[in-house]
Amino acid sequence: MQIEIENIPRTIELVRLEGAPPFGDGAVELVVLDQTQLPYAIEYLHIRSVEETVSAIKLLKVRGAPALGIAGASAVTLKAFEVYADILGSGGHFDPEGYRREMQGCAGVVREARPTAVNLAYAVDACLEVIAEELDSGSDAQIIANRLFEFVQQMCMEDENANREMGRLGASLLERPSGVLTHCNAGSLATAFFGTALGAVYEAAIQGKIEMVWADETRPVGQGSRLTVWELSRAHVPVTLICDDMAATVMGQGLVDAVFVGADRITAKGDVANKIGTLGVAILAKHFNIPFYVVAPTSSIDLSIADASQIPIEIRDKSEVLEEPIDGVEVYNPAFDITPADLVSAIVTEAGIFKPNEISRIVK
Amino acid sequence: MQIEIENIPRTIELVRLEGAPPFGDGAVELVVLDQTQLPYAIEYLHIRSVEETVSAIKLLKVRGAPALGIAGASAVTLKAFEVYADILGSGGHFDPEGYRREMQGCAGVVREARPTAVNLAYAVDACLEVIAEELDSGSDAQIIANRLFEFVQQMCMEDENANREMGRLGASLLERPSGVLTHCNAGSLATAFFGTALGAVYEAAIQGKIEMVWADETRPVGQGSRLTVWELSRAHVPVTLICDDMAATVMGQGLVDAVFVGADRITAKGDVANKIGTLGVAILAKHFNIPFYVVAPTSSIDLSIADASQIPIEIRDKSEVLEEPIDGVEVYNPAFDITPADLVSAIVTEAGIFKPNEISRIVK
Repeated sequence: MQIEIENIPRTIELVRLEGAPPFGDGAVELVVLDQTQLPYAIEYLHIRSVEETVSAIKLLKVRGAPALGIAGASAVTLKAFEVYADILGSGGHFDPEGYRREMQGCAGVVREARPTAVNLAYAVDACLEVIAEELDSGSDAQIIANRLFEFVQQMCMEDENANREMGRLGASLLERPSGVLTHCNAGSLATAFFGTALGAVYEAAIQGKIEMVWADETRPVGQGSRLTVWELSRAHVPVTLICDDMAATVMGQGLVDAVFVGADRITAKGDVANKIGTLGVAILAKHFNIPFYVVAPTSSIDLSIADASQIPIEIRDKSEVLEEPIDGVEVYNPAFDITPADLVSAIVTEAGIFKPNEISRIVK
Repeated sequence: MQIEIENIPRTIELVRLEGAPPFGDGAVELVVLDQTQLPYAIEYLHIRSVEETVSAIKLLKVRGAPALGIAGASAVTLKAFEVYADILGSGGHFDPEGYRREMQGCAGVVREARPTAVNLAYAVDACLEVIAEELDSGSDAQIIANRLFEFVQQMCMEDENANREMGRLGASLLERPSGVLTHCNAGSLATAFFGTALGAVYEAAIQGKIEMVWADETRPVGQGSRLTVWELSRAHVPVTLICDDMAATVMGQGLVDAVFVGADRITAKGDVANKIGTLGVAILAKHFNIPFYVVAPTSSIDLSIADASQIPIEIRDKSEVLEEPIDGVEVYNPAFDITPADLVSAIVTEAGIFKPNEISRIVK
């Protein structure tokens, strides 16, 4: 069947509402495909506040490092529209320093919604830079809100472009029709569009180089079983779901020629924080001599962190693993793990394909 | 808290019913703790036919290699009681050759209920040997039924004794208070009592050598999340549940000093068929330089198989992995995998602790 990537709905878009006043409540809206309802229902959230955005992030209704960046910048933008409406409503007085503090406070709340993916913090900080720049050149709340709105649009466009470039580069790593294994969802659903690791898969599929994608369930949240298999099947890419504990068997049977995963944060040394389970897959890939590729935009690289042990690892609720507690049974539920650079064959970014130990040079 | 192994209910018992006629329907009953209802309900099945036994095996209401052996022998015994009642009902004529054929037919059905664990086939074949022996010495259906009943009682006793001996041997492999990781359920619930891999854990816990048991969920059926954590907590052994894709992280954090798992079948070369996911855990253990111990009775050793690729691997239903199908998404659900001998540090049997390559010598 023809590969049809356009069959995958967009995950996240910040839109101006037609017929609404240009500012204030309802002027702009963050439209988010609710990923907790997939694959059995396609439902959209229409988000108009920072609080709703933070809640959607914490509840994993929107997830994936690049999409989290867009969500974070969108939250700050929603706030900017709200604040401008308040200023209008209260007579129009604009206090730049008060405004700066209010936006910084908002940024802090958004930044903390999820600690591991660096894209969220980056995007929020980039918004603060936009705000500071505009304030320095004397812009008012109206101009700043508009600038932020455009900034989010540009982020989405750049994310998709970067993904398509990573797709081309990632696909070039496959020489022939291949079996590919992936963990979690680094797909179109995790980005503005097209995906990172799955972007490489889509481009490879278009080029006739995908025999089968083996998708790990990715317990406890099931990003593989609910999201990856869904978006791949929508695009007509052949996909087989396996439980996380079956990856070794599939690799051992010679069915996997390469592993492609995304990243939530990459250190200067090339260590990779990604969804829990990635480390195990990398170790299995090494054992079976299968290349292990990380596909992530340069915005996932965090040169401020030398040692991966400094990356904050989010520990999530026990109920994700065990619905009803059992007396005397503890549950450990870290949401991410760290794959050391020596297990990573290459990192694919929009700026090129690099060995993990080259990554700090590139970003500079 | 004091370790209290007797808090764990027995999994499987073949009993004579009080007040019932000594033969015929209801003379004996196979009482099985329904493992599909655990941990949230303790329910017993009262099984009186081969068909019900086979169904309970296929639906995983009874599982675990040693318990499957007992279930298989019990099914043949239930048949023997039924056939004797039929003979009594039809006037008492006993045709030894017809009887032999009928019991062989029954044995075939039971043997095929699950293909991977060798204990089921062994136990059924052992019953056929008992029958052949008795027929050769002129015994009738009554004597044979009684002999089989006693044979099952003896199997249960020997299983528990073997487990307690493996427990002592397995516990001796830990030198100090340790973190232990296990996959699937090789516990009391998988045996007549006490367990194989968890038998070693219980004995070690009694000796004060267990700091924490890390129990893999073991998708898709959840023998870890439903059974292992439940029986360990009943016995007051400290246990933490993790998803299968978290094992690498826990090992990487230095929390695991040894892995203990059971086995469904061990080849002459020391390759180990066990629950899907075992291979992955073995590879991770090797990567982190953690000893990987297999605990299994000598009845799990199958010298007739030289090459592990000859072991039939049961492929189970897709619905175990994905409750509702998704259009265009395949599911692969092998129930077992093969861990090659070179990943196994030692095999603990009731006859001693052996290197995998020594296993064929011992059994001879």
